[in-house]
Parts: sequence; C-alpha cells; structure tokens
Amino acid sequence: MNLNDLITQTSEWLKGTGAHSDIVISSRIRLARNLIGATFNSRASEEKRNEIISLLRPVIKSTDSLRNSLWIDIDKLSRLDLQFLIERHLISHELAGGEGARAAIISEMETISLMINEEDHLRLQTIQSGLALMDAWRIVNKVEGELADRIGFAFSQEFGYLTACPTNVGTGMRASVMLHLPSLVITRQIEKISQAVAKIGFVVRGFYGEGTEPIGDYFQISNQVTLGQSEEEIISNIEQIIHQIIGHEENARQFLLTRRKKQIEDRVFRAYGTLAYARRIDSNEAIKLLSTLRLGIELDFIKNLDHHILNELLIAIQPAHLQKLNGKALTAVERDIKRAELIRKKIKK
Amino acid sequence: MNLNDLITQTSEWLKGTGAHSDIVISSRIRLARNLIGATFNSRASEEKRNEIISLLRPVIKSTDSLRNSLWIDIDKLSRLDLQFLIERHLISHELAGGEGARAAIISEMETISLMINEEDHLRLQTIQSGLALMDAWRIVNKVEGELADRIGFAFSQEFGYLTACPTNVGTGMRASVMLHLPSLVITRQIEKISQAVAKIGFVVRGFYGEGTEPIGDYFQISNQVTLGQSEEEIISNIEQIIHQIIGHEENARQFLLTRRKKQIEDRVFRAYGTLAYARRIDSNEAIKLLSTLRLGIELDFIKNLDHHILNELLIAIQPAHLQKLNGKALTAVERDIKRAELIRKKIKK
Repeated sequence: MNLNDLITQTSEWLKGTGAHSDIVISSRIRLARNLIGATFNSRASEEKRNEIISLLRPVIKSTDSLRNSLWIDIDKLSRLDLQFLIERHLISHELAGGEGARAAIISEMETISLMINEEDHLRLQTIQSGLALMDAWRIVNKVEGELADRIGFAFSQEFGYLTACPTNVGTGMRASVMLHLPSLVITRQIEKISQAVAKIGFVVRGFYGEGTEPIGDYFQISNQVTLGQSEEEIISNIEQIIHQIIGHEENARQFLLTRRKKQIEDRVFRAYGTLAYARRIDSNEAIKLLSTLRLGIELDFIKNLDHHILNELLIAIQPAHLQKLNGKALTAVERDIKRAELIRKKIKK
Repeated sequence: MNLNDLITQTSEWLKGTGAHSDIVISSRIRLARNLIGATFNSRASEEKRNEIISLLRPVIKSTDSLRNSLWIDIDKLSRLDLQFLIERHLISHELAGGEGARAAIISEMETISLMINEEDHLRLQTIQSGLALMDAWRIVNKVEGELADRIGFAFSQEFGYLTACPTNVGTGMRASVMLHLPSLVITRQIEKISQAVAKIGFVVRGFYGEGTEPIGDYFQISNQVTLGQSEEEIISNIEQIIHQIIGHEENARQFLLTRRKKQIEDRVFRAYGTLAYARRIDSNEAIKLLSTLRLGIELDFIKNLDHHILNELLIAIQPAHLQKLNGKALTAVERDIKRAELIRKKIKK
C-alpha cells in the first residue's frame, strides 16, 4: 500500500454503522505520549528529532496492530499530499505545517493512525464509526500497550503522562464525537446546547477540525480535561453528554416530522434536486446540502440512498481529494465542476 | 363544451410551434369595435348594455368562425372562474371587474375570443403560436368581416373605427408579441432595449398582462399607435422591431454558449433539479425557474423535454388554474404544494 492507494478506499470510520449512526458519524480517541529521557519536540534539535523517528520506526513495525501499516515521511510530501492527509483526518494541520523530521503511520483501512514529532513525540488515534468511544479506547490502548512494552513513555506518579502542552497532561487523552445535528440547527436550539456543553468543560468544533466553524450541521464534541480523571471516567462523562444531545436531536426530528413535515420535505428534496443536477458547486454549499440530504435519509423522505455515501462525500469533495482523484492540480472553478460531477455520480446510484 | 372543459385542454397558442418559437411564445391581434348608433358603454344604461348582448348573441352564433363557440355570461361567474379566464388570456381584468351585463365568447381550442361590453361593445382577439401576426390578423379580420356583414360598426371617414378610448381610434387594433428573452436579461441588455422600443412608440409589458412587471424573462411588446396607419403597416412595423429583438437575443445566446457555457449549464440544471424535486413552490420562483429551463431547452442542454410543456405550465401553475384542476379552493400554501406536484409530473415525463 502507498499513499496514492488511499484515494480508492473509504476510511473504515465513514461506513455509517455502529450505535446511533443516524446522528453520530464517528468516535475518536487520541493519546499523546512522549519518550522517557528524550527532549520534548519544542526544544529538540533536528538530530534529536531524527533519533526519535529512528527509534520508533522498528518498534512500530514490530507491533501486531501496525505490522502492515503505511509509513509516510511527512517532510518529503508535497503540499497536496499533506492537505490530502489532513482532509482524511489522518494527520493534523500542526504536523503538516511543522518543520524537520516528522512521520505518519496509517493502518489498513485507516482505523489507526500515528503521528511522530507533532507537538508530542507520539500521537496515536483511532476513529470508529458511530458512537463507540469505549471500543475506540480499547483499540488505541492496545496499540499504546504494544508500544509501551517496547519503549518507555514519560510518566509521573503525580501528574500521569507528561505532554508538551499542559492541557494534555494526565491521561494524554482526547475523546471526541462527531455529531450531525440538523434538527437542533433548524429549530434554533443548537446555540443554547453548545453553550451548555462548553460550560461543563467540553469543546465544540466543526467537522473540519480545530479552529473551524461548524458547517452543514456537523459538530465535534471533545473533552477539555485530561487530568484527575481516569480514561474510563472521561469517556463515561462525554458519553453521558452525547446521549443527552442525541435525545435533543431526536426530539427535534420528531417535532419537525409532526409540525413541519411539508416544509422539511421540500427542503430535503430541493437539496437532492440541486445536488443531483448542479454542474458546479462550492464546498460550503455542498456540505450544507449534503447535510440536509442526510437528514432526509434519516427522516425516511429519501429512500434507496444510504447515509454512508454522504459520509464518504464529506471527505471526498474536499480540494485535495478532488485533485488526487483527478490526478492533477485543479483551479477553484475546476474543482467546483469536478465536485458537482462526483456528487451527481454518487447520489444518483 | 362548457367552461370547466377548458381546464383539460391546452390553448392552441401554447403549442410552441410557428416561426421563431424558440424565442417568440405567441402573437396576438385584438380589435376594438362599437355598434353604429349605440351609446358607448361608459355612458350606457344597463338596459342598453343588455340590448347589445341580445343583439350580438344570434349574430355571433350565425358566423362560420364562432358557430361552435362557448358563450359565457360573465356577470354570472364566480370570482374563481373569472380569474381562470383572465389567467388563460381569454378575458381582461377590466371585463372581469366590470359591472352589469357582459359576455365572453370562446372558439374551439381558444383560438378566437370575444368580449362584449368591456370598454367597447366588442373586442375580438386571436392568439397564435410563434411569430404569426399576419396570420393572426387574417383570422381576426375574417371574424370581424363576418360580423360587419351582419351589423354595422361605428366608423368615421376621418378617424376610422370609433372607440371608447381615443388611444384605440383608427384601426382599433392592438398587435402584441410575447417574447422569451432570458439571454438579454442575463447579459443586462434588456433595459436598454426596452427603453429603445418604448421610445419609438411600442409598449413593453410582462407575461401576465397590463400593469404587470415582467417576471421570468417574458416580455410582451405591442403597438401604441392605432391611428394614421393601416393594419398591415402597424404589423409590418412591429414585426421589424421583433425581428431586431430576436436577433439580439440570438446573439446573446451565442455569447452565453461560447463565453459562459459552464455557468449557464449549471444554472439550467439547477433550475431543472429544483423544479423536478421541490415539494412546494410559489408562482414567482416557478416562473423564473421555468424560464431558465426553457433557455436550457433552446440551448440544447436539456433533451427530451419540449418547450410546449413549459408554455403550458406558465398558464397551468396560476392560482385559479390550480384550484380548477384540483376541483376545490386552495390556500396559498396548498397551491404551492399542488404547483410543485404539477410541475414535477409534467417535466419528469
């Protein structure tokens, strides 16, 4: 497998299965780890950074979980390939935009991915379809265990795992869930809910990662606190919140179905009509219409179209994906044309 | 035949044939006539108005052209039926909103229609598909001749035919042509052309008649002057103007095809997508999208859809038509739903 093969496959987490997959797109667990006795990256020389990579490479390849993984030297990639990996949620903006020796390791079906020499020496993540934080935790914990057996991670009895940024100290864990909440947006409850969630220590972001505004009713909720709680407690807390939000979204969907059925039906079918016929469409409009169409599938207005197609499109309509898929650089207008083409092909099936 | 049968038939003039039918929807000739020795309607008593009707009824029924026509006593109609006849371009707002004895006579396929006791004692009109003013003139002239043989029309050697309003004195003729000029609208040339046409004595109106703003790129152009020129001269003058406008629209279409093809194609297919899937749509939006779709047919982006379907829809999506078609009164929201249903059914064929 090489990087270019990824374009022909669909990431496991987009398959649209798992608990509450009508509302929950995916669940993600990320761990931050640093090697014992090695300088943190912020102060490490290029030589030291290279040593980290040299040390980790054989260790990673020797684990059961990552034996057949794809190793990518980030510092050798083109801007397009970097953007492509960011769009697939496999690497961070920070890793892509960094300097010096960096690597990413991607398991088959992209279930697990590692970043070396991002903010920390090592970042491990898994993304699973649906609401599956405990499963995700088990998967990532197994990989972490395999690595910990071979190399030591910096750990303090008092603080837990030591990380470059104090916000990650403790478990080093970030748990996040991607939700599709169109009915809470339509009924204007989302603002209140977002604020309430933020007040009790969770972070609300958009689909396209840190610093992005929510577009198309996709919201990513993650824990702020990593210290003073066990991993299981953090997961249990966030799951409780997620279950509450799911309940609100379900109620709002029921309200729309009983009180505003014709209006929502019209909105859904117009979205379908535009997506099925437009000859050029920008990202922003496409994401919004795909979101409306997904609601239409969940409310059973649209038959014979599975929501995993729409999950896949959320990733595939992005700029680098369109360019990789077409095998060449594309201007913004060309991308709008190719995006419309791809969407038509996928949703008319 | 009775009035309710009209809803199941398509007016002859909507069939989308004839010269330049890619741009010219229809050609209309209307004559105003008054009976010799009878008081003009503006000053006539109800008794006198009744006499006009009694006099004209057997005369009209005795002509070849109108032997099988439908006679409608306008003063006995419901508001819905009045609106229905206005929407079909068979009677005027003025006849519908008038008082006292009034009648409309409609030939088979609605080619010819007469109004009794509108502003003048008699108004005769024919509407033909495409650019066909001379044909229309021949048809209406024949009916006028059949009537003139039986009853005399008020005529002065100096002024010509005498009419209630001085703007009609002379020939009593109004020639008008309904044009579809989307490319002149898109390329922002329409304003300049409208002004130029108005300056040389022609009137520019919308599709839905006197006093209406043009919607959806449909423009009706008619002569202002009825005096001092023969009917053939008036027709020849307006045809010259129409040919010039057709030429401008054709150039603009060519420009769009060569310079803005992708953009127009997208606009056309989005219009199709919305029309083919919307679950509710108001008149204004429907007319605009149908206009864009008609352009798409003429530019050959849309295949297997004839423009006569769109001509028919321009009439059929109006409020009274939707209510007659559904056999009951409908609220505005219900009409929006039925309008969307009708459009979907017609354009998906």
